[in-house]
Amino acid sequence: MRAAPSPEEIRTRNLAVLLRHVHRDGAVSRATLAERMGLNRSTILALTADLAAAGLVREELPGQTGKAGRPSLVVRPESDRVYVVALDVGADRLAAARVGLGGSVLDRTETTRPGGTFDPEDVIGALVDMARAMIGAAAAGAVCVGVGVAFCGMVREEDGVVRYGPNIGWVDDVPFGDSMTEALDLGLRVAVGNNANLGALAERERGVGEGLADLIYLHGDVGIGGGIIMGGELLGGEGGYGGEVGHMIVHPGGRACACGSRGCLEVESGELGLIAAVGGTDPVGQAAVDAIVEAAARGDAAARDALHQVGEWLGYGVANLVNIFNPSMVVFGGVLREIYLASAAQVRSRVAVNSLQAVRDRVRLRTSALGGDSTLIGAAELAFREVLTDPLQTLARAAAARA
Amino acid sequence: MRAAPSPEEIRTRNLAVLLRHVHRDGAVSRATLAERMGLNRSTILALTADLAAAGLVREELPGQTGKAGRPSLVVRPESDRVYVVALDVGADRLAAARVGLGGSVLDRTETTRPGGTFDPEDVIGALVDMARAMIGAAAAGAVCVGVGVAFCGMVREEDGVVRYGPNIGWVDDVPFGDSMTEALDLGLRVAVGNNANLGALAERERGVGEGLADLIYLHGDVGIGGGIIMGGELLGGEGGYGGEVGHMIVHPGGRACACGSRGCLEVESGELGLIAAVGGTDPVGQAAVDAIVEAAARGDAAARDALHQVGEWLGYGVANLVNIFNPSMVVFGGVLREIYLASAAQVRSRVAVNSLQAVRDRVRLRTSALGGDSTLIGAAELAFREVLTDPLQTLARAAAARA
Repeated sequence: MRAAPSPEEIRTRNLAVLLRHVHRDGAVSRATLAERMGLNRSTILALTADLAAAGLVREELPGQTGKAGRPSLVVRPESDRVYVVALDVGADRLAAARVGLGGSVLDRTETTRPGGTFDPEDVIGALVDMARAMIGAAAAGAVCVGVGVAFCGMVREEDGVVRYGPNIGWVDDVPFGDSMTEALDLGLRVAVGNNANLGALAERERGVGEGLADLIYLHGDVGIGGGIIMGGELLGGEGGYGGEVGHMIVHPGGRACACGSRGCLEVESGELGLIAAVGGTDPVGQAAVDAIVEAAARGDAAARDALHQVGEWLGYGVANLVNIFNPSMVVFGGVLREIYLASAAQVRSRVAVNSLQAVRDRVRLRTSALGGDSTLIGAAELAFREVLTDPLQTLARAAAARA
Repeated sequence: MRAAPSPEEIRTRNLAVLLRHVHRDGAVSRATLAERMGLNRSTILALTADLAAAGLVREELPGQTGKAGRPSLVVRPESDRVYVVALDVGADRLAAARVGLGGSVLDRTETTRPGGTFDPEDVIGALVDMARAMIGAAAAGAVCVGVGVAFCGMVREEDGVVRYGPNIGWVDDVPFGDSMTEALDLGLRVAVGNNANLGALAERERGVGEGLADLIYLHGDVGIGGGIIMGGELLGGEGGYGGEVGHMIVHPGGRACACGSRGCLEVESGELGLIAAVGGTDPVGQAAVDAIVEAAARGDAAARDALHQVGEWLGYGVANLVNIFNPSMVVFGGVLREIYLASAAQVRSRVAVNSLQAVRDRVRLRTSALGGDSTLIGAAELAFREVLTDPLQTLARAAAARA
């Protein structure tokens, strides 16, 4: 049997749980915290005081509640004072944000570029510049408590090694997390995750799938990544590389894919599939997708046919995922938002014909509620993980490193 | 915070954990139990005495160990005295077994029949007869502590309702568990689970995938079912119907499936696919599969072509599952054992070409180590669940119901 936790461990855990409630909800009354955590008000008072003294939360009188009696103070996150840097490496864009405790995006920047092969050193250099700009623009006295990166490929989360990122030309192991940690030199370990996995978490925490236990997030940039949450947990698999739904074969013998296979979901139904279906475009990326969707809306026959065809393959892929996983929601993010919206009839029809009734009746198909930023918001949540596990120690360490 | 468990709750939990070790391993020394459970020897002594007094385990001197010193007594399950009845409803067979605590199969019977539509009442009647025969042949004084059924379709586990079992013609809800409980009238709730899910658990507990956290079991009878264990847990999905990999579309526009779709894995690559690929056979079922495999081994060109074709589609399906889940093992059971063995070259070649390297390098493809009985053994494990959660109460209840 496990030894009982020490009073200090219990206090740390309670501080973390309280801070998570405040981070998630933005403003929570002491009374609500006491109820949710099953603790008495005096314990909540003491925990809140500790977090407030550290500068992680502040207490305020609530707005007018209409209820009689003495109002319970609300606890709010110190969003301007405690923040993380979130970075997003897509195949055709780099994005960065400064995100305050509580989840508010305080600043955001993005650079797009044509897809292709990128030297890891160049990518790291560009990300470091963006991260430094975010930190430099923070309020005086503000503390960066974490840096998280969403990456468009297979990532070994424990050490941030990129195992496979073919859409930017990384096919051998790249020690991406360690290199970023060293280059940024903030005294903080840079955490790296797969972009679609992080997007799934973001949609579940703050997006269209809030609170769902069984959710699939499909992220389109040049390829298609999948983040699959089942029973409340991200699907990892033996090596943590589960969820590579972009390489599910929906069209045996179909188009050649960079992975060496043919007919993968991502070459048939993502940005690549759509651009190929109209015979190629210039430029590529989000702009190309937008142009095709607009042309179809104007009645352009080639664009409509292309969206119809792409919707068919996307529908086969979604029907398979619905049969295999029985999810309560499938969320389309990145450029798949526009592709799904423009081909929803085909996708829904394939799901109706090709999924089993017991599972298709309950699944909802939705687009991301976080704009194009699910993966970036997910990177921020990854960066907050440490301060939400041990608030006081993490903050003290981050403040010391800054000094 | 949760209240601390009472001494009685701690004792029940420790009894259950100890009994699970003995059930899993067959014979465990007191010293090993003390080490594994982190309890001192006198506590193990007291717990073992309680289980022995109830008739769940017995203590014996071990065989010659070659070690000096006083030997630690080994604790063995009372396999002859405490047993469950396991039942397996396949599309073309019914099977039953009496399985003793510790997992030994004490008795086993099976009836095959042509596939088709079966009235639930007839199925229940036949199963009840088989179960009664198993119970009637048990030793005097033996106690049946559970009944578990593996069913070839979608099952809602909490109440044993069959949601969808098209391969035996059950397309509307059938209150199968309740009907079985009532018809058997043993004072025991009959537990029902999906056959492939139970097969996956059996392979993980007692089969080729022993101890693996990330395992996919593919069960072939007329259709193909999938049991998917990820992170040590069965994949459920929103309604508990996850793992319907038999209806993954591997061949868009391919053969029509009973589910209303086309090109599903089970019609292209299971028994149905193989029989169709040789232009139909008589008889069907395991015998038909065996006949085709034997013909191919003799050099029959049509049989070889059929197996080649079926292996291709099975390979596409397995490649997709490997990409989506990153499992450490895929296990082929039921008639898929023979189909896989006879078409392994095609399956492996598809996985080599169509799966991503980071995931395919680590996956092993294996056939079931439990013969055709993974699903039946899984049903027995399901039936043991209650006695392995609260040993003394469950045994007392079962003994009282028998009296």
